[in-house]
Amino acid sequence: MTELKLIESIRSQVKPHPNVMLGIGDDCAVLQSHPQAQLVTTDTLMDGRHFICGDTPPALIGRKSLAVSISDIAAMGGVPEAAFVSLVIPQRKESQPLVEGLMSGIVTLADKFHIAIAGGDSNSWSGPLVVSITLTGRPHHRGPVRRSGAKPGDSIFVTGPLGGSIDDHHLNFEPRTFLAKELLDLTPITSMIDLSDGLATDLRHICSESAVSAQLNPEAIPFRSNITHLDTRLEKALTDGEDFELCFSLNPKGVETLKRAKLSQPIYHVGTIVKQGPNALQWNDGTAIISTGFEHGF
Amino acid sequence: MTELKLIESIRSQVKPHPNVMLGIGDDCAVLQSHPQAQLVTTDTLMDGRHFICGDTPPALIGRKSLAVSISDIAAMGGVPEAAFVSLVIPQRKESQPLVEGLMSGIVTLADKFHIAIAGGDSNSWSGPLVVSITLTGRPHHRGPVRRSGAKPGDSIFVTGPLGGSIDDHHLNFEPRTFLAKELLDLTPITSMIDLSDGLATDLRHICSESAVSAQLNPEAIPFRSNITHLDTRLEKALTDGEDFELCFSLNPKGVETLKRAKLSQPIYHVGTIVKQGPNALQWNDGTAIISTGFEHGF
Repeated sequence: MTELKLIESIRSQVKPHPNVMLGIGDDCAVLQSHPQAQLVTTDTLMDGRHFICGDTPPALIGRKSLAVSISDIAAMGGVPEAAFVSLVIPQRKESQPLVEGLMSGIVTLADKFHIAIAGGDSNSWSGPLVVSITLTGRPHHRGPVRRSGAKPGDSIFVTGPLGGSIDDHHLNFEPRTFLAKELLDLTPITSMIDLSDGLATDLRHICSESAVSAQLNPEAIPFRSNITHLDTRLEKALTDGEDFELCFSLNPKGVETLKRAKLSQPIYHVGTIVKQGPNALQWNDGTAIISTGFEHGF
Repeated sequence: MTELKLIESIRSQVKPHPNVMLGIGDDCAVLQSHPQAQLVTTDTLMDGRHFICGDTPPALIGRKSLAVSISDIAAMGGVPEAAFVSLVIPQRKESQPLVEGLMSGIVTLADKFHIAIAGGDSNSWSGPLVVSITLTGRPHHRGPVRRSGAKPGDSIFVTGPLGGSIDDHHLNFEPRTFLAKELLDLTPITSMIDLSDGLATDLRHICSESAVSAQLNPEAIPFRSNITHLDTRLEKALTDGEDFELCFSLNPKGVETLKRAKLSQPIYHVGTIVKQGPNALQWNDGTAIISTGFEHGF
């Protein structure tokens, strides 16, 4: 298949979008400007690292490649708008169904979240599949929720059970943009991050950007039902990664507001922000949490 | 090196930018909105295809990876603003100097074009180096220049000599944003594209999007000085690709305006837009041009 045919096929699947003035087919896409700021995030997923070609159905590879970026927009409290899809495709006989499946997974999830596929790039080589997606979005009218606004006394929440995402959750998780909007419609959120590298690593980012520490209640941390072993499940919930739930902090007034509200799904109060101490993370009995989630390196 | 250290090192090299409200270090970047539209382009470059790790100095790999996207912004007549850099890094001993050189090449060119490095992603694996850059920009006040506005009677120009870019031009070319602005300050441009796949292929894109044909004057096509063989240089100028000059069309009034203007660099009048015929491209004696430039496929 030539790149031109691939682009034509993608162009034919893509619906018009009110904020995309010019989509696929020119040197650049042209997006409508917002009165508010624009969010931009980018994620690159590779065969053997984030998915296994041959094992993972192509549509789920495509779905995950877009879902991780939607999750980043959710973590700023935003609404996704336009995606730019770069494919590096293995030169193999089976690549045509691979690309078709990949794109169908991307387009299906994009439609569900009202995201336009506004551009991209495609190349082929003798190496493994790489999918890189850049996603734009608009913030909630309260403004983008950063990692840096947590204050001592705030409560820490997560939006779903953690750990064991390797089974299939990392491929079919639901990015939390709708819930983030629901929360922000009710109350300001002082800080937020999405859990991609594990609560232990990602909550440390909030602590370091906000210059605070965090106390977690081991009894309150929700586990995914596939991690049942008592000795290891706390460790797995903290470090497995790819949960793609949100972790956020609320001030006491926000907690009161949410107590009175009916949310569309449960959230879990897992701890408290405290003054910055020698350990970014500790249990609520004061002992340090030394676990770390996934650390990228080369 | 861990990803966190890499991000810290990049963060320390990046200067603040008036249009980047929040750069590296959160889930998304936050860009200031323009009253005008936003341009977005994305390009992915791979070892063995667009550069050769080991042969190509890392700083030139970085330079090229950003320059090709600046060239896309130039092709819309825009000014680049914020870059998002995704790296897929080989897990090798030599990767630290590779990444440092790569980033220095990116940062140096970004500074020259007043581009902020506003975000990105980094991953490592056992495969070859992949660099994917998404670049945003703002259009000229006349609006984005599309491929689709060429009209019969327009003149076709290119902004520099073509062919033979494989020597080193493809690594150190100058993206034409300044020239594009200079031209647009003087006159509207009816269509424009940057020459990445060769004049024969890229001018066909203008013809197809504008529903016109193009006549080229073989005597007027400028050659790079390293292609000297009389029999093949026309073919090479049309098909080698990676010239990264601009090809654009002007109506007769625009041509008159430019004749009276002093431009900072020469431009070359290579042909004329004509009514759509059976061949998108022909020589000015009416014979069809069958050459095609680079076609991506998998």
